[in-house]
Amino acid sequence: MAQKKYERLAAELERQIASNLVKPGERLSSVRELSRVKRVGLNTVVRALGLLEDRGLIVSRPQSGFYVLGPRASSGVTAPAMRLTLPKEVQVPDLVSTLFESAKDRQVLPLGAACLDAELYPLAAINRATRRVVREQPRLVGGYALPPGDFEYRRQVSRRLEKFGTFVAPAELVATGGAMESLGLALRATCSPGDTVLIESPQYFGILQALQHLRLKVVEVPSHPVEGVQLEQVEEALRRGGVSAGLFTPNFSNPLGTLMSDEKKAALVALFARHGVPLIEDDIYAELSFQGLRPRPLKAFDTRGGVLTCASFSKTVSPGLKVGWLAPGRYLPRVQALQLASTMGGSPLSQRVMASYLASREYERNLRELRLHCSVQVERFSRFILERFPEGTRTSRPQGGFVLWVELPRQVDSVELFRRALEEGLSFSPGTLFSTRELYRNYLRLNCGNRWSPRLEQGLARLARLVATMAKARPS
Amino acid sequence: MAQKKYERLAAELERQIASNLVKPGERLSSVRELSRVKRVGLNTVVRALGLLEDRGLIVSRPQSGFYVLGPRASSGVTAPAMRLTLPKEVQVPDLVSTLFESAKDRQVLPLGAACLDAELYPLAAINRATRRVVREQPRLVGGYALPPGDFEYRRQVSRRLEKFGTFVAPAELVATGGAMESLGLALRATCSPGDTVLIESPQYFGILQALQHLRLKVVEVPSHPVEGVQLEQVEEALRRGGVSAGLFTPNFSNPLGTLMSDEKKAALVALFARHGVPLIEDDIYAELSFQGLRPRPLKAFDTRGGVLTCASFSKTVSPGLKVGWLAPGRYLPRVQALQLASTMGGSPLSQRVMASYLASREYERNLRELRLHCSVQVERFSRFILERFPEGTRTSRPQGGFVLWVELPRQVDSVELFRRALEEGLSFSPGTLFSTRELYRNYLRLNCGNRWSPRLEQGLARLARLVATMAKARPS
Repeated sequence: MAQKKYERLAAELERQIASNLVKPGERLSSVRELSRVKRVGLNTVVRALGLLEDRGLIVSRPQSGFYVLGPRASSGVTAPAMRLTLPKEVQVPDLVSTLFESAKDRQVLPLGAACLDAELYPLAAINRATRRVVREQPRLVGGYALPPGDFEYRRQVSRRLEKFGTFVAPAELVATGGAMESLGLALRATCSPGDTVLIESPQYFGILQALQHLRLKVVEVPSHPVEGVQLEQVEEALRRGGVSAGLFTPNFSNPLGTLMSDEKKAALVALFARHGVPLIEDDIYAELSFQGLRPRPLKAFDTRGGVLTCASFSKTVSPGLKVGWLAPGRYLPRVQALQLASTMGGSPLSQRVMASYLASREYERNLRELRLHCSVQVERFSRFILERFPEGTRTSRPQGGFVLWVELPRQVDSVELFRRALEEGLSFSPGTLFSTRELYRNYLRLNCGNRWSPRLEQGLARLARLVATMAKARPS
Repeated sequence: MAQKKYERLAAELERQIASNLVKPGERLSSVRELSRVKRVGLNTVVRALGLLEDRGLIVSRPQSGFYVLGPRASSGVTAPAMRLTLPKEVQVPDLVSTLFESAKDRQVLPLGAACLDAELYPLAAINRATRRVVREQPRLVGGYALPPGDFEYRRQVSRRLEKFGTFVAPAELVATGGAMESLGLALRATCSPGDTVLIESPQYFGILQALQHLRLKVVEVPSHPVEGVQLEQVEEALRRGGVSAGLFTPNFSNPLGTLMSDEKKAALVALFARHGVPLIEDDIYAELSFQGLRPRPLKAFDTRGGVLTCASFSKTVSPGLKVGWLAPGRYLPRVQALQLASTMGGSPLSQRVMASYLASREYERNLRELRLHCSVQVERFSRFILERFPEGTRTSRPQGGFVLWVELPRQVDSVELFRRALEEGLSFSPGTLFSTRELYRNYLRLNCGNRWSPRLEQGLARLARLVATMAKARPS
């Protein structure tokens, strides 16, 4: 469906607002100016501005012009008061299957699983690279990519990390089939079944599932919505003992989207090193920073090989290529043996295709667009929700990635909401999935990865109505 | 390197011999006849026959002609006397890493890992299919292939099984990244760490490694070199109790290459069903039958969903595409949850490419060639070994696949032999890797998957000399 002229203009202005080209409180160019600069009619400008006003991004002040609105003051979720927990087995509710089933259903609006609109990935470039690699290296699929995997791919990953101040040699990297395989290998290399892993809360349910199926217990450290985990609590947990590994997402945690400062990263790494406990990090969202610079992984602060960094290109280049990596520090030999015994290594074709793409200039260019898309989308979702959802609704303020953590009025049960929403053809991730405790019943995570569309907007409006109904129906 | 005319003729005659077109004891056509029929000069025929004579395939009888030789009477390995063992933890020697390292080294003759010459796979067709799929379905790599995986791929696997009398609906299949992932999922779905799995001995060390890393114990049932496992011993082990799953390779076991009869398969399935114990089968070599017909999997005899069939196309179509499947019976929901939590599913591109190839006529045509190649190669290796290795050497008589199990004189330690061979640039799999017991010290497994070449022949001759030296040096 072709976008109309005024919609295109609105989208352009919206990107400018989201990228802080025009800041909250500032005045937009006048209708006449915009018409001249953008080379469109006055009517088009008026309709575009009307659209932005409807979306709560700008406000018209008579005799003066249009002003950019800031996020509402109520934004920012509250963290439930929470102490360190005792080691506990993980049991992710069956609801997750329903969630993933709904992700396959094209009739359902995909706000559940964290995935981007397929059109945002550089698929044409990947397909081109695939055809080229197949033509130039026809024997590639005739052999295995035994652990640690294709050298050229590992070299490209190493170069990319080096570009942002983290040196990990190709020989210290293992190619994997994605971040989940990386995490599984890291956990199996450091823990035995029955062991305890220190994690932050709320935590992505996919990781909780991985922990559950590896029969690992968890101690949850509460994560502050902006600051992230409190080091004091991490230290307390380590001092208590019995922790076999830590698992954190310092760069744009999922679902909160918080970014850990470099100082805190250094302190966290030092803390784990002091206690001799390995530290696993999920670095999958690092490239999707709203500020444009890829933040450094914990690995950058690791001097003893105790940090295992897990990542993939599923959120930035292609989920279907299934290529990730793991920098396992001193656990390298064990990780290689584990991978050999569980998959014999990944796909040589996928790894070489990704290497070829990473070596191209398009990678950086596409990342820039992707980052902008993510920041605009998250902002758009956030504004829409704060505008249309009932009083008492709050949203996280992610610094990267493309998910939003939403706190609903206390009386709204997000599991019940999920069932009702699914009946109306839309999906999201209920908060209860993000902890082993009953802490996030009135929270939910929204995938903001899809392009904004009338269908999406109608879906969110439907969700807003459902929440409003439930907020009224069940007073706390 | 282009093959000379007489070498091509020799290869053709050799295939006729291996395929039993001319049987042992029968006379070959005369030199003159061959010259006429094959349209080559008399000299070419004479040189070709000389080559076959050198290889021990034919013998010249003065005044009469050339006769096909049968395998030597001493062929057929002996099984070490062995009782059922008690549950034991698995600890595969580190030697395996050396073995896999050597597989990456192009200077080393690859007789260790079981892999075919890359040129034997239908790589051109796979690459063509890849280019076509990428062109026709450019958005495929933009999404996940969430468990159970691409429908079209599962449909093609189902059709293939149906063709040989085994009906497994597409909905009962899970696409995987290869047989090792299938086996891992099957084991994790049926067992917990610390549990015991009933396996046959000798057993492929890759499976032993998988068991080790999943922290499973094993009870080994001795496998007769021709008959396979003894049902009485299986029954005894099940009656003892404490077994959480069985794992067998009824179709061309690795390393023995034995084929279980349909009657025995039915009885084995019934036995496990009676004891309520799940039965996992590794069906990866089933298509490589020397008799041409794909034997049925245990699954064909399963009425209660207790059989989990694991397979892949890594040995028949492409190792690099990384596509396998798992028919997990009643463990389907658990397998899907496990796969979701460990990899989020396989590659949608690889699965679709494989589906496209499986739907083509080339698949069956290439399999026919591959089967012939395997039978010819195994026969050639076997003859060479029985001819050149010292007295007391015996070889298995595989009915499919492309590995040969070799029994050396009792005093030869295959681990020591391995170290010496590696120094001389050739690799094989020492027998000690195939059991948790010290049973196969004077055995080794040879990969016969590569094309015969002067380099290969020289390598085997070198190995023969090493064995001879060790057989003399250490009298028992």
